[in-house]
Amino acid sequence: MTSYGFLGLGIMGRAMATNLLKAGCEVVVWNRDPAKCEPLLELGARRGESPQEVAARCELTFAILADPAACREVFFGKQGVQAGIGGRRGYVDMSTVDAGTAGEIAAAVTERGGRFLEAPVSGSKKPAEDGALVFLAAGDKSLFDDATPAFEVMGKKNFYLGEVGNGARMKLAINQVLAGMLAALGEGLALGQQAGLAGEDIVAVLAEGAMANPMFKLKGPAMLAGEFAAHFPLKHMQKDLRLAQALGEEVNQPLPAAAAVNAIFKRACVAGHGDEDMAAIYRVMKQ
Amino acid sequence: MTSYGFLGLGIMGRAMATNLLKAGCEVVVWNRDPAKCEPLLELGARRGESPQEVAARCELTFAILADPAACREVFFGKQGVQAGIGGRRGYVDMSTVDAGTAGEIAAAVTERGGRFLEAPVSGSKKPAEDGALVFLAAGDKSLFDDATPAFEVMGKKNFYLGEVGNGARMKLAINQVLAGMLAALGEGLALGQQAGLAGEDIVAVLAEGAMANPMFKLKGPAMLAGEFAAHFPLKHMQKDLRLAQALGEEVNQPLPAAAAVNAIFKRACVAGHGDEDMAAIYRVMKQ
Amino acid sequence: MTSYGFLGLGIMGRAMATNLLKAGCEVVVWNRDPAKCEPLLELGARRGESPQEVAARCELTFAILADPAACREVFFGKQGVQAGIGGRRGYVDMSTVDAGTAGEIAAAVTERGGRFLEAPVSGSKKPAEDGALVFLAAGDKSLFDDATPAFEVMGKKNFYLGEVGNGARMKLAINQVLAGMLAALGEGLALGQQAGLAGEDIVAVLAEGAMANPMFKLKGPAMLAGEFAAHFPLKHMQKDLRLAQALGEEVNQPLPAAAAVNAIFKRACVAGHGDEDMAAIYRVMKQ
Amino acid sequence: MTSYGFLGLGIMGRAMATNLLKAGCEVVVWNRDPAKCEPLLELGARRGESPQEVAARCELTFAILADPAACREVFFGKQGVQAGIGGRRGYVDMSTVDAGTAGEIAAAVTERGGRFLEAPVSGSKKPAEDGALVFLAAGDKSLFDDATPAFEVMGKKNFYLGEVGNGARMKLAINQVLAGMLAALGEGLALGQQAGLAGEDIVAVLAEGAMANPMFKLKGPAMLAGEFAAHFPLKHMQKDLRLAQALGEEVNQPLPAAAAVNAIFKRACVAGHGDEDMAAIYRVMKQ
Repeated sequence: MTSYGFLGLGIMGRAMATNLLKAGCEVVVWNRDPAKCEPLLELGARRGESPQEVAARCELTFAILADPAACREVFFGKQGVQAGIGGRRGYVDMSTVDAGTAGEIAAAVTERGGRFLEAPVSGSKKPAEDGALVFLAAGDKSLFDDATPAFEVMGKKNFYLGEVGNGARMKLAINQVLAGMLAALGEGLALGQQAGLAGEDIVAVLAEGAMANPMFKLKGPAMLAGEFAAHFPLKHMQKDLRLAQALGEEVNQPLPAAAAVNAIFKRACVAGHGDEDMAAIYRVMKQ
Repeated sequence: MTSYGFLGLGIMGRAMATNLLKAGCEVVVWNRDPAKCEPLLELGARRGESPQEVAARCELTFAILADPAACREVFFGKQGVQAGIGGRRGYVDMSTVDAGTAGEIAAAVTERGGRFLEAPVSGSKKPAEDGALVFLAAGDKSLFDDATPAFEVMGKKNFYLGEVGNGARMKLAINQVLAGMLAALGEGLALGQQAGLAGEDIVAVLAEGAMANPMFKLKGPAMLAGEFAAHFPLKHMQKDLRLAQALGEEVNQPLPAAAAVNAIFKRACVAGHGDEDMAAIYRVMKQ
Repeated sequence: MTSYGFLGLGIMGRAMATNLLKAGCEVVVWNRDPAKCEPLLELGARRGESPQEVAARCELTFAILADPAACREVFFGKQGVQAGIGGRRGYVDMSTVDAGTAGEIAAAVTERGGRFLEAPVSGSKKPAEDGALVFLAAGDKSLFDDATPAFEVMGKKNFYLGEVGNGARMKLAINQVLAGMLAALGEGLALGQQAGLAGEDIVAVLAEGAMANPMFKLKGPAMLAGEFAAHFPLKHMQKDLRLAQALGEEVNQPLPAAAAVNAIFKRACVAGHGDEDMAAIYRVMKQ
Repeated sequence: MTSYGFLGLGIMGRAMATNLLKAGCEVVVWNRDPAKCEPLLELGARRGESPQEVAARCELTFAILADPAACREVFFGKQGVQAGIGGRRGYVDMSTVDAGTAGEIAAAVTERGGRFLEAPVSGSKKPAEDGALVFLAAGDKSLFDDATPAFEVMGKKNFYLGEVGNGARMKLAINQVLAGMLAALGEGLALGQQAGLAGEDIVAVLAEGAMANPMFKLKGPAMLAGEFAAHFPLKHMQKDLRLAQALGEEVNQPLPAAAAVNAIFKRACVAGHGDEDMAAIYRVMKQ
């Protein structure tokens, strides 16, 4: 049985590593704050001393970290993955990073004789606990194949998307669609209510038709109730819209509807709603 | 048992009247071309001589006609419903008409002592056959209550939305959301493909997440395949977007995202794709 | 010498009729409130008893009235122009009206044997006093030729634009350009200031280049100072943008930039700035 | 009398250096291709051996180069300005570069003990020849004062805008306004023509009002004639719009109208008009 390294035991990482352990896998865990390792050790995990040691010891090391800065620190930093990787061992970074960071880490892994895969996940805490994540993987195909059994434990679906960077690009395209749907929902609710319809009726009608989707079911009532506790912060979605616009510029793709949607998200940020849930764009629509 | 009148036996009407008959209801049918009554008569329907006679004879008369002009002709024309309605009998127009036409017919019904309900349906041929339509009803509440058993036979859900005109307004709000989703899907596919992703992968990823919905499942592959046989013609959706913008002006509701979406639909019309399916907006996005 | 009728002695009309008198023309004036005729009578005008009498007596009658309702009243009302026009005498309506109103009056004039010209003016109080207006005339060409000497007294430029309705259409196209320029100015000032530039510098740089124009010279400093006393009320411009969008729909012309501009004007209306000057769109741009 | 260094003798530089010489200034010229120095030498200029030598020899060295890459090469390259600058001598870069390049050169100049000014120009060949340029200067204020006599020879107006980077930012804000005006002009012409008006009439009416400006006078007839020989290439304007959007993101300024305008420019690029004049956006508007 393969021994998996696992770096990063935040909300997502803890749930994912737990699922690997419950499935009977050997897991070597490391976290910046070692206290967070304890619950995993109780489930049978072994402790890794450093990213370097984990990457040197395990055939396959997974990481899921907070942001590009943390990814760089864990990889390039003192006793980092870079110093331990090699011998065709694999490093699978499941964090959401920009294509630039992914590319630099990929190059460094390859240079040291290792294999690299970016695999940002779609899904949050609940799907992580339920083993229902979706992996958007890109990079070394043989490593993707080797990691597939672990992906299948942690998620319900995994995609191999080709060269490194495509995982990040897919997330941008998907999130642009999500933001467009959210703006459509918000403007539909605002128009209907302003025209005298009950918001609840609009949400209910949407739930019956071919447009019905879990996101509307969650965000529609949230908009009507004005409850915007952050599942996905508005400012993060605006950042993704900005990056999607930049990708559109790079590949010469006009995106007029997404540009209008981005302007709405920006207005909501300016109005001070950036730390609320992305559904709080409704605050700058509804009168 | 109530005896229902039923005017209009096109694709939708025939399926709906058939469901009423199969549920054991008494149905009196009329159609401009009487030949279309035959299959219903074989199922036990009785023939009505004219809209006037049907409206005079039945407690409750349903109509589902092609367009506002047909609605006016059947109601105000020679031997029309207007001449037969009265005595608190009910007239339920399930056609999709503008608020103006609905309002005129409503006033005329009330003046003659009858009751009126507009009840445009959401759903097309298949849901009509399966008794899975959604009714967006507005007008006389007592008539809504009286018509509910029939709605429950013909559909899976019915909404009472208040005063006459609200059925039409709800359809505009809903279709504006639909158009926004379609534009978001199209721009997401165009961006992703232009950035090197496989369109099929994008569609597949969307199908796994919280945004998954039957419409995307249908229209995503259609966009990729360039197959735009009209389920709902693009020009009709553009007309609804225009009316939704006009409604927004009327009630003083800014709709910047929908305005950008409308511009895309208009460009697609100008480019000659108005008679194709609404998903053909992809033709003016994809390079 | 032709004798001119002149109906409507508001701010514009008084200045225009004064110029005709100063140029030595015979002018018969009428105004709803007769007191406003006095200053003109002192300059040599004669008093008309009613629109009917003026239209019956003068070869050529000009009108400049507040709105479409006033135009209808003066034309179709009791002792109105309709009752006096005929015998190929001319009626030149210089008010700003919709194409519908212009069309109805045109038809009625023609039916009575008269000739009709719509001639909305570009320019406000000062150009009216200076004889520097611009006339956007459409309708009977022979009447345009007959009215040209008077136009030349009252204005600096006159255009013959073809069939009735084209005057109104020209105003919409022109005002759409104006609104787009105003939005461009506002977003440029907002971007520059937010990026650390002095607003005055931006205005000064714009005044030096190929984009320099009197409107920027007036509205740029007004935006920076937050002084929005209404020269042209924001809500009237938003109405024109709405009508321009509707004209775009009618003739199948996509207008994505104007649609985004319209959304800005609508937001400013919703925020309560409709009665301020159109430049007050800056209030919803600047932070 | 100050001796001016002058690096770069392209279309702009040659005209500007000529004006300095004609005004009686001492000018030391250098150009990558030395042949281009000849006409200036005939007018009395002296030849510089290298950027290093010019910067070491002259109190004040001006440069106007093709793009950021050329600016870097001339400054940081072998025998570049960097090696010669110092002793509080001044380096004035009049090229249009990004804020990043300007910042790096500024830092290197300061480190060597020199003074730096960025001073991108507004205006093209004709204003350069006529000494009618506008300078958007930012950086060392004492250097701005020292350079002012030369600016006054070469241009009609100069602005001191504060810290390095503000010159570039001003150009973006200004060009965003220009692009917005161009889009407004184009959509106005397209709407009016589609509605039956003559394009020439629209241009003529615009020329009479408060919106009249030299740019419309040039670009309006060009749009109508479909003559788009590049004065300022469309793709360069689209690049500036992209950078302005990025600046808006950086300083948190929503720019919905400019976003819609950018989408139009992108569509025109995609349609293959990037090398034509910026006015060629009309190609994707007019039917």
